Parts: sequence; C-alpha cells; structure tokens
Amino acid sequence: MEHIYKQKIIQGREIMKTSDYEVESDEAKGLPQPLLSNEKSTDTVVQLSKEFEDIITDGNFLSVLNNRTSKRKYAEEALTLKELSFLLWATQGVKGVIGNKRKATLRTVPSAGARHPFETYLFVNRVEGLNQGLYHYLPLTHELELIREDSDQENKVTKAFLGQSFAGGAPVCFVWSVVPYRSEWRYTVDAQKYALLDAGHICQNLYLAGGAIGCGVCAIGAYDQQLTDSLIGLTRAYSLEEDSEFAVYAAAVGKKVKES
Amino acid sequence: MEHIYKQKIIQGREIMKTSDYEVESDEAKGLPQPLLSNEKSTDTVVQLSKEFEDIITDGNFLSVLNNRTSKRKYAEEALTLKELSFLLWATQGVKGVIGNKRKATLRTVPSAGARHPFETYLFVNRVEGLNQGLYHYLPLTHELELIREDSDQENKVTKAFLGQSFAGGAPVCFVWSVVPYRSEWRYTVDAQKYALLDAGHICQNLYLAGGAIGCGVCAIGAYDQQLTDSLIGLTRAYSLEEDSEFAVYAAAVGKKVKES
Repeated sequence: MEHIYKQKIIQGREIMKTSDYEVESDEAKGLPQPLLSNEKSTDTVVQLSKEFEDIITDGNFLSVLNNRTSKRKYAEEALTLKELSFLLWATQGVKGVIGNKRKATLRTVPSAGARHPFETYLFVNRVEGLNQGLYHYLPLTHELELIREDSDQENKVTKAFLGQSFAGGAPVCFVWSVVPYRSEWRYTVDAQKYALLDAGHICQNLYLAGGAIGCGVCAIGAYDQQLTDSLIGLTRAYSLEEDSEFAVYAAAVGKKVKES
Repeated sequence: MEHIYKQKIIQGREIMKTSDYEVESDEAKGLPQPLLSNEKSTDTVVQLSKEFEDIITDGNFLSVLNNRTSKRKYAEEALTLKELSFLLWATQGVKGVIGNKRKATLRTVPSAGARHPFETYLFVNRVEGLNQGLYHYLPLTHELELIREDSDQENKVTKAFLGQSFAGGAPVCFVWSVVPYRSEWRYTVDAQKYALLDAGHICQNLYLAGGAIGCGVCAIGAYDQQLTDSLIGLTRAYSLEEDSEFAVYAAAVGKKVKES
C-alpha cells in the first residue's frame, strides 16, 4: 500500500472495529430523541399497498435465496405500484412502533438498537401510475411523497453514479441516505459502523424481495457523493450536527429480461 | 456532541461517504490477488450438506420476510448439522468460481466486486455431531474445520460479547471476520465502507434463513474487539499489512422456543 493513502485506510479499518471508548451518549444525558423518520415535506402523497400475495412470482424461500444474483439489465416493462410497494415494505417497512418515552420502529430489517437511521429516496423512471421523478418513502404511514417531477433525470442520475447508465435508466433506483445522529444519539462513536452494517441488511432484502417478484437488482456502492446528495436535495451532508444527512448506498431495480 | 469525541465521529461519517480520492489500486498495479478464502489450517474437517428441502419449516418467502425479528432466547434443543449447513450456505455459500487470471467467488450474498472479504467462525455449543468448540467454515469446499474443542467456552464468549450471555450460551454463535486487504486490493480507501455493507448482507440472510428452519437469530454489534479476536486466534488484527484480519460482526442462533 502506498504510504500517502495508509492513513485513510487505517482510519477505515478502525471504524470497522468496535471502539474501546467509553462515551456518554446524548441519550444517557437525557437529550431529546431524534425523529424516527424524516417528516413529510410535500403534499403530493401516494398510498402504498401492503397486500402482496398476488404479485409474488417465486414465493419459495430456498429458490429466492439460491437464485439471488446481481442484474444490470432490465426489461422495458414498468413496475407496478404494488411491486414498488412490496420493495419498500421489504426494505424499510414499519411493522410497529414501540416504546413510550423512547420510541423505536420495528421493521422488516434489523438495525442496531432499532435506530433505523435511514431515509429512502427513489429515482423513478418507469412505475405504473407514477410520473418520472424523485420520490421519498414515508415508512410510518407506508406512503410515497413526490419531491419533484423530472422527465430528464436519467442522465443526471447516471452522472451521479459515475457513468453507470444501467442505474440512471433503470425503472427505479433506490438511494438510501443516512441520518447519522439517529444512531449516534445512542451509539456515539460506534454508530457509523452499525449504520453501514444496517444499510447492508436493507439491500439484501431488496435483492431477495426483487427475486420474489421477477425483478433484477444491482447494489451500487460507487457514486459521486456530492452529486448524488445534491440531486436528492441533501444539503446538510457535511454538517457536523444532528441534521447531517447524506447518501450511503443505492441499488437499481427493474423487471428481469425474459430469457430467450 | 462533546467536542473530544467529535473527531472520531467525523472520521466515522467520512468513511460512510464515498471518497473523492483517486488512488491507484494494488490490482491496477498488477500486484498479486489475495486468496479468495483463508486456507484450511487443521485436518479435522466435517463435510456439510447442500440438500435443504427437508429441513425447511417455513418455505414461504413472504412469511419469512414478515416474521423476521431478533430472538435472544433459544430452546435447549441442538441444531442438526444439516441446519447448520444451511445457515452457512445462506450466508457465505459459494455457487461458483469465475475468472481466470483474476478469480472471484459467486455467493448467496452480494459483495462489492465479488471480493467477499470475510471468514466465518462458529462458537458451537449444541449442534448434533459436533463437539463443543470453535470451528471455521471453508466456503470453497463447503466444509467445516475444527479449530479447537472447548467444553468451557460459554463464559469466555459471553465475556468477549460484553456480558451478553444469550450469545455465549447460544447453540451456535457466528462471528464474521474481515480480511480488509481482499477488498482494499481493488477498492483501496472505499474498501472499508463496502466491507461493512457486505457484512450486513450476510447477517440479513442469516436472519431469513434462520426463520425458514425454525431458528431465532440476534445480530451482535457490541463486542470486545481484542477479546473476541483473541478467542478466535486472530493475532493480526492491528497489522497494517495484507494479513490483517479481525472480527467485524456476529450473531447468535438457536431453535426458537415453542410458544406456549
């Protein structure tokens, strides 16, 4: 390894380990709990379904598990809104809210201490009933809000994803942002590691849920941080305070190309 | 946030972002590719099964997805070797090896660039046909090797997991280690982020596969790094070179307690 990059690699490796710091958390200090989820910011809201039986094309767990693979080619066919509902449910769906003074959401995926420090944004190109544009998932009500219509987003998304045109042109591209303080409030210097592990849980469920409804999925770890944040409207990525939010992981989804 | 911890939190948040460094990787420089997986280190090897149809108790994908939850209580009942085989297959099973000069494994879970920089260790307490002790999974041959028998490991594991006795006493406790250089060889300063996302993929599959065979699972992010590494025999955690390997994530597994 070249010396000049060693420092960054050493820091990265340290984040992968559990820390031996004893830090009093903001939670322990009695500071207020952050929001469970970002609040709705627009009035254009789409209700999503929770009934999925009729869209499952492969409901066999073993088959879904064994057939998982990354797909970068998608059919022209649009996803239905119900299919998109299922993918959102499988990745961040809220099964219940627990707690009184300290609330937490129970979701289809685990998160350290049920902190769930993520927001889900979608670049939608081809979903029945949705105009092309940027959407934001509201997990507490299982709704989708339209942030902005954009009939010309494919090139912008491709550029933000470093030229990966399969992602820019995919029927839907998921981008998960992280709000680090939601986890730091409890886990301080371990929160960043936990949040990355948690983001991996989410993406794995997207792969499997996609497989169950005939969709191909490809995770995207390589993207331009600033362009992606800016395209979503995340302006507080570099804030050191509680309101920092930035893209952390992404994945493209579309109907599988029929095998000929 | 207290000022003295800010630096560590800032570093952690930076690791969660994609870097804007342009670093020539060791792969690009033509340096040799790291091993796909650690080699066998003992002669006590157990063959694992790949036939799982008869152990699935809930094969319905929707049901497995919706019923996922973290379980910290397990039945006294041992796991069968076939059940353990399935959990290893679901988390790190190798479906094929591709490439000629540059090889990669295709597994049940995705990993950035198919680097799969992990090893799987098991603290086995109650699995039919296995003595209590520490085991290591050999994904390329789908075998398990015994590192050492230990009829007194429960307390040591509990201590390494900061007093979480449900983990120390669980029928099986998975510990995934990371060999960072396997991913750094290609991804340099982005490798650490990718590996944490990838470890999350693995653990999510453990949750779901556990659910499909009547097992409860609980992910464990809080552990003592040095005690855990030392218990597994990972002595190169703090090496800055290619041979660094350390625990990165863990999970306890056992048969679900029957609802009364």
